Amino acid sequence: MEVASRLAVKEAIRELKARYFRCMDMRDWAGMRDVFAGDAVMDMREEMVRLVEAGLPVDPDGGLLRGCDAIVAAMSASLSGTVTVHHGHMPEIELQSADEATGIWAMEDIVSLPEGSPCRQLHGYGHYHERYVRDDTGRWYIHSLRLSRLHVTLI
Amino acid sequence: MEVASRLAVKEAIRELKARYFRCMDMRDWAGMRDVFAGDAVMDMREEMVRLVEAGLPVDPDGGLLRGCDAIVAAMSASLSGTVTVHHGHMPEIELQSADEATGIWAMEDIVSLPEGSPCRQLHGYGHYHERYVRDDTGRWYIHSLRLSRLHVTLI
Amino acid sequence: MEVASRLAVKEAIRELKARYFRCMDMRDWAGMRDVFAGDAVMDMREEMVRLVEAGLPVDPDGGLLRGCDAIVAAMSASLSGTVTVHHGHMPEIELQSADEATGIWAMEDIVSLPEGSPCRQLHGYGHYHERYVRDDTGRWYIHSLRLSRLHVTLI
Repeated sequence: MEVASRLAVKEAIRELKARYFRCMDMRDWAGMRDVFAGDAVMDMREEMVRLVEAGLPVDPDGGLLRGCDAIVAAMSASLSGTVTVHHGHMPEIELQSADEATGIWAMEDIVSLPEGSPCRQLHGYGHYHERYVRDDTGRWYIHSLRLSRLHVTLI
Repeated sequence: MEVASRLAVKEAIRELKARYFRCMDMRDWAGMRDVFAGDAVMDMREEMVRLVEAGLPVDPDGGLLRGCDAIVAAMSASLSGTVTVHHGHMPEIELQSADEATGIWAMEDIVSLPEGSPCRQLHGYGHYHERYVRDDTGRWYIHSLRLSRLHVTLI
Repeated sequence: MEVASRLAVKEAIRELKARYFRCMDMRDWAGMRDVFAGDAVMDMREEMVRLVEAGLPVDPDGGLLRGCDAIVAAMSASLSGTVTVHHGHMPEIELQSADEATGIWAMEDIVSLPEGSPCRQLHGYGHYHERYVRDDTGRWYIHSLRLSRLHVTLI
């Protein structure tokens, strides 16, 4: 692939991830559904362990979600009543083929929990480890996403 | 427009916004004036409501500023005596024509207020909604900027 | 240099700096060594003054480190026992020649200190001022790095 095309792929994936963050924090679930491939997998299992420790509700699948509908339904349910801020930083995107890429993103999230929750706020830092796919029309989607943590504070 | 040119526009706008943030936090008001188009509009009205609630001073125009000189004068006045950190993240930039573009940026700001203020610190998160214009020499400027908030803490 | 090549250089330098941050926070010291030129210089002297004030240990060179081995050894020693988060934002990268570039990055860092330290956490904001060089194989390296601070809190 020539230089400009490779750069355009990375730009498209950055913009894809920007939509992920904006749709999350602005509760645009229709927009979020369009971020994920139909058969996408989201692995938040490391996160679930922490939520159990904190006495927060966890989804019945234990944090391993399959399919864009299940992913968006779980996001929408788990963030109900919260105010959230999710920011991504410093991507390292690698093209694996013309239609596949991988990426690592540094991240920070703040989840302000509703009244009556066991904690008031979760404030975390970590990395997203992701895979992207391009469909026949040239659009990119998140195909898999796994969150690992550096540090989380519950107050 | 060809691929490389479109990417170059987005890069130029990212660098424009980087100057906005650096000039803000380093108090480079001459540099900041060069970030805005002469007839730029800055809409901080949502912010003003919050500042009034917190007992902090608000500018007499109610947060809707017209013209680069008025914008920079208001910034310089409102940040006097403070220490600030403004960070931008995850831009979604769209070219509207050869000389116009729009962008959404996630943001975080920390404003440490001077001794004797009703609060010690403002810590906020939100999005900038912006429009950019290119002049005859090929330079890009912010033409309009509106700040919306996800979450603000005053301590 | 043509447009696409200039953009590719900036992308390569962003990815270089992304590795710097990831290797720092994930303690990948072999990866970190590969980020710096052999004769790199890291200037953390402004930081040392603050650490002395806080009663934290400082390196015997006073924060001016010469050579990639000395830089990585000092990082590894000073972060031993800590949990860290380092994020970079809003780069302004300028090509100075085909094989040299400069950059300014906004940054935030959180250093959670081990039990028994005089402070529990350092939370800071500032800018990296950097120079980059490209070797014969086309790889970019950090040649010099200086940290300036906007604001640091020790709690």
